[in-house]
Amino acid sequence: MANPAYVAVDWGTSSFRLWLIGKDGSILAERRSGEGMTSAAKTGFSQVLAGHLAAVEAPENLPVIVCGMAGARQGWVEAGYIDVPAPLAAILTGAVRVPGENRDIRILPGLAQRDIATPDVMRGEETQLLGALGTASSQAQAVCMPGTHSKWVHVRDNKVTGFSTFMTGELFDVVSKHTILSHAVAGATEQPADAAAFEAAVSAAFARPALASNLLFAARSGQLLHGISAASAQARLSGTLIGLEIAGALQDAANSDITLVASGRLQGLYEQAFRTLSLPFTAIDADAAVRRGLSAAAETLWPN
Amino acid sequence: MANPAYVAVDWGTSSFRLWLIGKDGSILAERRSGEGMTSAAKTGFSQVLAGHLAAVEAPENLPVIVCGMAGARQGWVEAGYIDVPAPLAAILTGAVRVPGENRDIRILPGLAQRDIATPDVMRGEETQLLGALGTASSQAQAVCMPGTHSKWVHVRDNKVTGFSTFMTGELFDVVSKHTILSHAVAGATEQPADAAAFEAAVSAAFARPALASNLLFAARSGQLLHGISAASAQARLSGTLIGLEIAGALQDAANSDITLVASGRLQGLYEQAFRTLSLPFTAIDADAAVRRGLSAAAETLWPN
Repeated sequence: MANPAYVAVDWGTSSFRLWLIGKDGSILAERRSGEGMTSAAKTGFSQVLAGHLAAVEAPENLPVIVCGMAGARQGWVEAGYIDVPAPLAAILTGAVRVPGENRDIRILPGLAQRDIATPDVMRGEETQLLGALGTASSQAQAVCMPGTHSKWVHVRDNKVTGFSTFMTGELFDVVSKHTILSHAVAGATEQPADAAAFEAAVSAAFARPALASNLLFAARSGQLLHGISAASAQARLSGTLIGLEIAGALQDAANSDITLVASGRLQGLYEQAFRTLSLPFTAIDADAAVRRGLSAAAETLWPN
Repeated sequence: MANPAYVAVDWGTSSFRLWLIGKDGSILAERRSGEGMTSAAKTGFSQVLAGHLAAVEAPENLPVIVCGMAGARQGWVEAGYIDVPAPLAAILTGAVRVPGENRDIRILPGLAQRDIATPDVMRGEETQLLGALGTASSQAQAVCMPGTHSKWVHVRDNKVTGFSTFMTGELFDVVSKHTILSHAVAGATEQPADAAAFEAAVSAAFARPALASNLLFAARSGQLLHGISAASAQARLSGTLIGLEIAGALQDAANSDITLVASGRLQGLYEQAFRTLSLPFTAIDADAAVRRGLSAAAETLWPN
């Protein structure tokens, strides 16, 4: 086994992931848990991290690089924001050291867009972005990072020129659970199983985004009048919200190359949506991207 | 006091309203309660109605006309739907008598739009519409009836040509309560108090409806980056969802006259939104409209 070089941590709102990385860049050990910021804010960030470090037998002096919500105001140590427009590499220089720890633990900053009319923030996705594109990315790109709060980042000449958050995942969740549509989707499996309904909804919302909240209600009316299934109703919800997101994200960037940074279920859904809309795209695995971004930061902070 | 002629009931999902109407058309007594369909489905529709009839001392043989969710499948007695396009007066002929009651109790049907691509349903608003416009309404109109599920009805030559439901009120509710934006609006009063933020959000969503779920998130980012108040965040949410609704509703009806059928808080908000967008409109009180619609039905069923 290669000697460990550092530990990389992606610490989100509701998830914690840790990798022990070797001097040759290989993954020596990995941990995943639900101890995200919300949970760790109660039990103690230092304690949560120490437990996982012990579990992978990380040497006492091994440094740790962290990205994500651990750096939020309500997180472990506030790591601030880098203001856009900014070069992708700027986040490498903004890491904040966690005080009171013997070990060298650094948390990477987020990105902020401070315009009064279009304020926006991200934490964690900037590191994923760095890992996905590297620091040298000259082509104009729209990078889509789907999730609870999907991020679309516009990159040109190695600079983040701007970004937008869409509440797609969270809207899908609350609409499915807490509105009248909960009856229409009751019993559906997590993964939309009606591809035709999903694709029709993506197309409809993309073509007529102003009708979004009407298209959502059609899942209910369609069930009352045409007996559509829960799977079909759920696919409509998902497709409507994703179609709306893509329409909004590309409104001012119709000619950008699209890069999709995603994993698992969301990767499949967004790929299907882009194909439905005949939008060419490049897919990059999100898990690998965040690890590459953390590694880039670690290698800058602690060169071998 | 005039002799009573009939009882009119607007029986919604979560509210019950009853009027005792005199032979001269005057309101002799009125009842309001929270015993809507959801509650009455448990305690018994017949019993709820009987209690209110006794409270207003309605004579034993006095007929009752009902509109709203009491006629839904999960309501008291299913009253079906009149399919659009249909003349407004068609609902007058579709009333269903409640069986097993000595008293003559009739429930008015809803409206259904059965197109596969744009299915939609309403119950209660058709009666409000009839009361608002009467049976002779030749001008092309877009009638806005805001609420939990806002209805926009297109009327031409005395016919309902089509309609659309927008989940505006329910989305405002679940987004305010169950998403990350709940932190941003915590402590705000019910009535949006920041008129400038409301108007800016209405304009932004109307101009760029595809950005709706991004504009919602800006209530959060605006709080993190610019310290906007809870009142301002709430006004943004409300304005974004109302602006989105109006953009969608007028997409194919930009030249229709707008009639707003609303009362109270919602009337004020929608009037403010229409003025912000420089859209001329006529306002009709929703409470008076539903009573007039029920009276039109009663006078057709039980002519003096």
